[in-house]
Amino acid sequence: MRLAELSERSGVSLATIKYYLRQGLLAPGIRISATTAEYDESHLRRLRLVRALLQVGRLPVATARKVLGHVDDDSLGRTMRLGAALWELPHETEAEAEQDESTAAAQVEVDRLLGKLGWDSAREIGALSPVHRSLVVAVATLMRLGYQWDAELMAPYAELMHQAAIRDLDFVETHPSEAEKVETAVAAAILFRPVLDALHRLAQEEESARRYGL
Amino acid sequence: MRLAELSERSGVSLATIKYYLRQGLLAPGIRISATTAEYDESHLRRLRLVRALLQVGRLPVATARKVLGHVDDDSLGRTMRLGAALWELPHETEAEAEQDESTAAAQVEVDRLLGKLGWDSAREIGALSPVHRSLVVAVATLMRLGYQWDAELMAPYAELMHQAAIRDLDFVETHPSEAEKVETAVAAAILFRPVLDALHRLAQEEESARRYGL
Repeated sequence: MRLAELSERSGVSLATIKYYLRQGLLAPGIRISATTAEYDESHLRRLRLVRALLQVGRLPVATARKVLGHVDDDSLGRTMRLGAALWELPHETEAEAEQDESTAAAQVEVDRLLGKLGWDSAREIGALSPVHRSLVVAVATLMRLGYQWDAELMAPYAELMHQAAIRDLDFVETHPSEAEKVETAVAAAILFRPVLDALHRLAQEEESARRYGL
Repeated sequence: MRLAELSERSGVSLATIKYYLRQGLLAPGIRISATTAEYDESHLRRLRLVRALLQVGRLPVATARKVLGHVDDDSLGRTMRLGAALWELPHETEAEAEQDESTAAAQVEVDRLLGKLGWDSAREIGALSPVHRSLVVAVATLMRLGYQWDAELMAPYAELMHQAAIRDLDFVETHPSEAEKVETAVAAAILFRPVLDALHRLAQEEESARRYGL
């Protein structure tokens, strides 16, 4: 398809598409003459992902370019390719990270929880993963405020999240190409988060109304 | 206990506690002389909650005061008291809310999903609830970017979130007084969110490593 059709089908303006092309967020089409290039479904998919990264994920252009660089890096295995792409996404708690005794205590608690769950890979990746770090920071915050951390209480939540993760990967695997799999995983990480959060809160309202009335 | 002990046990400075008292975020102690007042465990609990609201939830003082007002309003039933307190918390997607055809379509999809799940109270509260609104906005965003919404795909996630909500309320109910129940629910809504998000992402890494290796 031509640029005009790409714009129409994606709902993204010509000017914006050209900006993405200049910024290297979208691969150039195949030149078919001095003035026209041909685009395909992969460009459409990529445009959707770029918008998800910039508009919903609120990533700076440079960060989005890094994420997409990992998405496109087929020299990596899928776990690392996915990991590298997702690790570039901002992690909520990163800003508050500071090393103190709560952090050290949280580290021990997280390690204990992962052991209990049998999440050996997560434990092994450990310090390498910003996600692991996010969990430590979140637990440290809780402890610093004087709330108790209770591994017995949290383990079943972790199991629920594991069931969600199994569904996530099953869904990713329904996509035919490796590129689409990785793209889908990144888009889902950004777009499903607010959906899941809202479903969780709505489920609390539903359950509360069932137990105590409106 | 005296103010000095309250400060020591909570880890909150005297100046900050006095600021919270002036702002009406913390109830005054019981005067025992012209210059001293006596504080108890409820003050300690409240201090923790105030810090969670301000530091982790990043609420403005005026909003925190509103949340605490609902927490303390024992004229309301528990569902409404909780709801009113939680509804004051910021909802991620609110800023992007705009009424367009995606929003209308998302409304229909959310209603269909809730019907399918049998979440009749959530459906009934519907437009009243900012949480319901958050879900509609999140789904609309997804659709606007050209991603598909698939109720078949999402329903099992909603069921997982319902299981989490059942655990949330069971945990809230382990607290003896009505005040503690509501306080715990509000604190959990703020402090557990980053923990759950991190557990979800970590579960994805674990599952990915199990399926595809590191």
